[in-house]
Amino acid sequence: MASIFSKIINGEIPSYKIAENDKFLAFLDIMPLSLGHTLVVPKQEIDYIYDLPDDLLAELMIFSKQVAGKIQKAIPCQRIGITVIGLEVPHAHVHLIPINEVSDMNFAKPKLNISQSKLEEIAKLINA
Amino acid sequence: MASIFSKIINGEIPSYKIAENDKFLAFLDIMPLSLGHTLVVPKQEIDYIYDLPDDLLAELMIFSKQVAGKIQKAIPCQRIGITVIGLEVPHAHVHLIPINEVSDMNFAKPKLNISQSKLEEIAKLINA
Repeated sequence: MASIFSKIINGEIPSYKIAENDKFLAFLDIMPLSLGHTLVVPKQEIDYIYDLPDDLLAELMIFSKQVAGKIQKAIPCQRIGITVIGLEVPHAHVHLIPINEVSDMNFAKPKLNISQSKLEEIAKLINA
Repeated sequence: MASIFSKIINGEIPSYKIAENDKFLAFLDIMPLSLGHTLVVPKQEIDYIYDLPDDLLAELMIFSKQVAGKIQKAIPCQRIGITVIGLEVPHAHVHLIPINEVSDMNFAKPKLNISQSKLEEIAKLINA
């Protein structure tokens, strides 16, 4: 069965797109830790990030760097933090999280409750 | 002033080495979130990970993948999680964390209190 991220990639599930090329897609996490929290996924459905071939892993990271640059221009923050956990959705994904302090990357804290219109606004801001 | 990681790279501060080449060093985090928690740093002292040139960033990730493979052979875990925060030490570093659940990557929880001899034992195990 296709992962939820493959369904997003295929357009079966809508998303707030931030960047896309032939190999990768970046879109807003709809349950973000901070405003602008973005997921970057390879279009090829590979579960564990370290099962990506070296060249695809390298390209994923360079693509993520470009996405992080876009986010940081739009969202005031100290840094874009990076996290890969990979225990919940069996499709490798990189979390890019605008942070000002270490606790901004704590996945144990409650996610932001954020409206669709706010997500749309953030996506527009990052894509401007 | 040299960062604490540059001092480790230069051998001024001892470390429990996991892997090294001409561009990168991997060593155990002495305040780990889980047994086998490892830091991977570029030898070039660059503060923000996304200020690394694309080719060095790509190589860092491929090196980290190799290190993660070594750790996973020695430390029973579901995955090796990846985190880059970068707010505390001004020298880019990748956390590689053996995880079994999401909370294993929570930097807000108390670090493990671990003896030097235990760290030495873990380093030996990973390097075996």
